[in-house]
Amino acid sequence: MTETTAAPGPRSAGYVSADLYAHLQQFYARQMGLMDDGRPDEWAATFTDDGVFDEPNRLDPLRGRDAILASARERADRLAAEKLDFRHWLAMLDVQTQDDGTLRTRTYALAMRTPRGGSLDVFAHVVCHDHLVPVDGSWAVRHRRIDADGVARDDD
Amino acid sequence: MTETTAAPGPRSAGYVSADLYAHLQQFYARQMGLMDDGRPDEWAATFTDDGVFDEPNRLDPLRGRDAILASARERADRLAAEKLDFRHWLAMLDVQTQDDGTLRTRTYALAMRTPRGGSLDVFAHVVCHDHLVPVDGSWAVRHRRIDADGVARDDD
Amino acid sequence: MTETTAAPGPRSAGYVSADLYAHLQQFYARQMGLMDDGRPDEWAATFTDDGVFDEPNRLDPLRGRDAILASARERADRLAAEKLDFRHWLAMLDVQTQDDGTLRTRTYALAMRTPRGGSLDVFAHVVCHDHLVPVDGSWAVRHRRIDADGVARDDD
Repeated sequence: MTETTAAPGPRSAGYVSADLYAHLQQFYARQMGLMDDGRPDEWAATFTDDGVFDEPNRLDPLRGRDAILASARERADRLAAEKLDFRHWLAMLDVQTQDDGTLRTRTYALAMRTPRGGSLDVFAHVVCHDHLVPVDGSWAVRHRRIDADGVARDDD
Repeated sequence: MTETTAAPGPRSAGYVSADLYAHLQQFYARQMGLMDDGRPDEWAATFTDDGVFDEPNRLDPLRGRDAILASARERADRLAAEKLDFRHWLAMLDVQTQDDGTLRTRTYALAMRTPRGGSLDVFAHVVCHDHLVPVDGSWAVRHRRIDADGVARDDD
Repeated sequence: MTETTAAPGPRSAGYVSADLYAHLQQFYARQMGLMDDGRPDEWAATFTDDGVFDEPNRLDPLRGRDAILASARERADRLAAEKLDFRHWLAMLDVQTQDDGTLRTRTYALAMRTPRGGSLDVFAHVVCHDHLVPVDGSWAVRHRRIDADGVARDDD
């Protein structure tokens, strides 16, 4: 093995197993796909019944799956009417396990859209913070906070 | 464990193992890299001999690896002549195992290019649907269908 | 199993385990996050003490963690002063294990920024080549070379 020294750092601590990481990658790929495919009911079902969707820069927090679903249906109808292809990319997934068996995740997300006959517009980058709880052998979102880039922070 | 309820949904069903997921991520990273690096022969070798490349919005289906290879070589020559760096990003991989041992995958893909001395242009988003068959301990593409965003659907 | 033939190719050789792949995905997600979050000290700690950061198109090679750290701090101060949200996306990770227990990785990377109150600008694509060495049960970067797209190659 190569001998080397490195400064003490956070790099060797707190990674999750490949099983969990691949599971969450698939969870997010499918969850985002449901929203992008205009299937708001299935998308909302990936939240707990008391789930919260919080995107401070854009709207008041949605509290409970019913509110999340109503908002998602409205959005899906609007996009269908506008004949707009909308895509959410998530990447750079980081997972922090919690002592109570839940998970805190952070992902980067890119939002992009293409109008019929038009050009791709990659128009927003956000950081997504999820609190995931175990449900039926998989995970559901209890809390999602979305911080858009380009917005003033508390410490500005 | 946290007690919670969640609506029945597709979220807990049908994820593949971490082994398979990581294998496919590597398969796609390398496959796209071969195309972007201007190595059409190795890229075409990731298709079966009867492989089909179908991108309805752009060209007639390419049937068979020979046709796929000829098209890829032409494209590589053109890009080299134009001195254009072309990149394909794939992400949001979703895998569905089939009863016959094959796989159906769905990925999002971004196409981007940078001319010599010029600026990056992220110009197209597509959804890639692959049918993968097992070959020599890995996978090969038997059928690829690429649906570009911004194109009218049958149901429009 | 499906019977098929495929041309001999590089596709079945040299993939790493799911454990290693997921570990490296988490390593990169966290490493890039540290830089984007303005934490240059922790970011620099992911390099070895003799680490080299080489981005030929932009600056002279930074040799040693101290030089890397000094440059990173300068950059973090500048971005904070400009109130600019900067993001690095890495994807398409390919890993080559070396006989001496080290790793060579190749990733695609997108650089993007959003000024306060402004619009997202996805402005550069690069290819990142890392030499990783094992440290404390994880990995550290001994050498990073970043090749920007759109720059003349030696063979042009």
